[in-house]
Amino acid sequence: MALIVQKYGGTSVGTIERIQAVAGKIKTKAERGDQIVVVVSAMSGETNRLIGLADEIEEAPSPREMDVLVSTGEQVTIALLCMALHKVGCQARSYTGGQVQILTDKAHSKARIKDINGARVKADLDSGHVVVIAGFQGVDDHGNITTLGRGGSDTTAVAMAAALKADECQIYTDVDGVYTTDPRIEPKARRLDRITFEEMLEMASLGSKVLQIRAVEFAGKYNVPLRVLSSFEEGEGTLITFEEDNVEAAKISGIAFNRDEAKLTVLGVPDQPGVAHKILGPISDANIEVDMIVQNIAADEATTDFTFTVHQNDFTQAKEILQGVAESLKAQDVLNDDSVVKISLVGVGMRSHAGIASEMFEALAKEGINIRMISTSEIKISVVIDEKYLELGVRTLHEAFGLESEGVA
Amino acid sequence: MALIVQKYGGTSVGTIERIQAVAGKIKTKAERGDQIVVVVSAMSGETNRLIGLADEIEEAPSPREMDVLVSTGEQVTIALLCMALHKVGCQARSYTGGQVQILTDKAHSKARIKDINGARVKADLDSGHVVVIAGFQGVDDHGNITTLGRGGSDTTAVAMAAALKADECQIYTDVDGVYTTDPRIEPKARRLDRITFEEMLEMASLGSKVLQIRAVEFAGKYNVPLRVLSSFEEGEGTLITFEEDNVEAAKISGIAFNRDEAKLTVLGVPDQPGVAHKILGPISDANIEVDMIVQNIAADEATTDFTFTVHQNDFTQAKEILQGVAESLKAQDVLNDDSVVKISLVGVGMRSHAGIASEMFEALAKEGINIRMISTSEIKISVVIDEKYLELGVRTLHEAFGLESEGVA
Repeated sequence: MALIVQKYGGTSVGTIERIQAVAGKIKTKAERGDQIVVVVSAMSGETNRLIGLADEIEEAPSPREMDVLVSTGEQVTIALLCMALHKVGCQARSYTGGQVQILTDKAHSKARIKDINGARVKADLDSGHVVVIAGFQGVDDHGNITTLGRGGSDTTAVAMAAALKADECQIYTDVDGVYTTDPRIEPKARRLDRITFEEMLEMASLGSKVLQIRAVEFAGKYNVPLRVLSSFEEGEGTLITFEEDNVEAAKISGIAFNRDEAKLTVLGVPDQPGVAHKILGPISDANIEVDMIVQNIAADEATTDFTFTVHQNDFTQAKEILQGVAESLKAQDVLNDDSVVKISLVGVGMRSHAGIASEMFEALAKEGINIRMISTSEIKISVVIDEKYLELGVRTLHEAFGLESEGVA
Repeated sequence: MALIVQKYGGTSVGTIERIQAVAGKIKTKAERGDQIVVVVSAMSGETNRLIGLADEIEEAPSPREMDVLVSTGEQVTIALLCMALHKVGCQARSYTGGQVQILTDKAHSKARIKDINGARVKADLDSGHVVVIAGFQGVDDHGNITTLGRGGSDTTAVAMAAALKADECQIYTDVDGVYTTDPRIEPKARRLDRITFEEMLEMASLGSKVLQIRAVEFAGKYNVPLRVLSSFEEGEGTLITFEEDNVEAAKISGIAFNRDEAKLTVLGVPDQPGVAHKILGPISDANIEVDMIVQNIAADEATTDFTFTVHQNDFTQAKEILQGVAESLKAQDVLNDDSVVKISLVGVGMRSHAGIASEMFEALAKEGINIRMISTSEIKISVVIDEKYLELGVRTLHEAFGLESEGVA
């Protein structure tokens, strides 16, 4: 008998029929003797409907009242799912975040879970109930309703799994697992049976938005085995594990990419201590997040070239700030380019395999793809290239590192 | 500085515009220096929408889960009303029933309030906040969400007023007060400035459904001055009071009526001890509620005629039960009539005025209205008459007892 926490997102419970389908799925598992905790999101569209009501009143509504408002979305789902479970003969009981209790800090709309009291849930499980919990919400020390921010239901599920020492946390979504890359770009992309937490973190932050980053971090911290599965199709999905027992098998697990990069370069800055801070300080003061940073000695060796990337939304503002900074630093010039993309190879296997980077650069060069910027970490190599080469670059690397599904290759 | 509890029903907060209008009303009062607690219902239509979702899943959903579901309706309203109050510059804070805490028994969908902890609300009032509370809901000893049944927001408001020792509990609704009778039947009906709790109970139970009976009982028990006012028009409304200082002024406060009566008579039952129980026992066993009961000695003095009224919905079933009973009791005959209505004079003044009954019967006789049944209590005289005379009967009595509005009369 296993203790499983399952999470169903808004699309999976988007209509009464889908809620009934989810109830059927849960019943099958419960009849096998597993103890099941279900975490659900609001029915798709519901959160936006509620936000729409608030928008009619106030552009910037009180975060406290916003949380009171939107947390009703999940509360509706837990009641309806319990009714559907009763209908198919499954004992079930619902809990709001406050009822569990899921204790959070006071940061309305982006609260972090501090503690979970699993006692009532455990007692219900032991008496044969399926327990259905509202995702995305909790209460602070004073009983004020808080929410964890969009996608927070994943975090609720992982946190519940950690608190209950569950055997597995299953995230049901509209994809059937984590792929080697986006199948819309590379049709030969293959579903991964397993991926490590570290790889998943890199994949998630780079745009493979299957899971919320915070949920993955949480799972890693508390050693919760996490599985991504489809709500609509049968299958084993992808297991996200904290073991690295498949290091030998593959050097590279997947290829992530990000279309939203923009590149800025300060050319010929006199090279002196603190120059990086002088350039990035004003950017950071403007709340602009910087992604890749590269600094090189320039040809004359007395100056340096400093390049970094920001989100395209922040490009114009960053450019303006940089003009001022460059003048005060007596830099030669500022270059900028928002027609770039980032492609990253991700894999814990690259730690023990030298030469991945040169293989990558060679494969891209063969196709005439010029590399604008390079950045490496323990399990990731990222390159910035011209936007027009995105699809070609992804497919080239996918083939070069043998990521195709076996049937197709 | 007064402490006022205001309650706004579903129609009063039925749209964003109306919520904004309510916020404006509250602000005016708050600026006068009053401390204000607001109890709100779900936006009109919302509770039915939620029940509709449940209906799609299960005809008889779990009462516990039903309460989890429908209680979201009021939670949405409290958040939106607080946002609207913030928008007009009023400090405001919302509470669900569970957050207050409004403690109830475990009777889901018809729970009764056991206790209210007013400490947090009082602290917020003292710090200058308007406090907005979700009506109709509470929690039991284990934190399970309960609801008080439809119209329960009135009860929440009265209970909050009692707990906070408020100066007045104001029920805002779509009528501007309690009238001497239904203005749709008698256009000269007059709004009452005051009415006693006892009169209000009789008026409410007879179909003048301005307030929930339970709320009125609650107000009487805890001496909470209750006022009914219009959400949409200015005016003083009707004060429901536990004092009888206006006894001298009027003998009769109002005329109530009920169209849903049906009359059943057992003729010529041998008169023996326990006959009433033998007739009504089987009716009561079938969960049929009996309203008026009259028993007379029949002409032969050895038998009795036994008449009672039931709701029209129960008429057919009651008739069938009575046929069997009449046979076993060797009664002469069973008569029945569902084309009857009940009209009642209500007024604490009649206690000190003899002759009200004969005045009433005389007025009806003058118009050729035959009385089928009579029942009296301390502050009420009810007659059953043929349905076709309802409007004429109400108008005749309204005039006979001088209830017209002064301007019109």
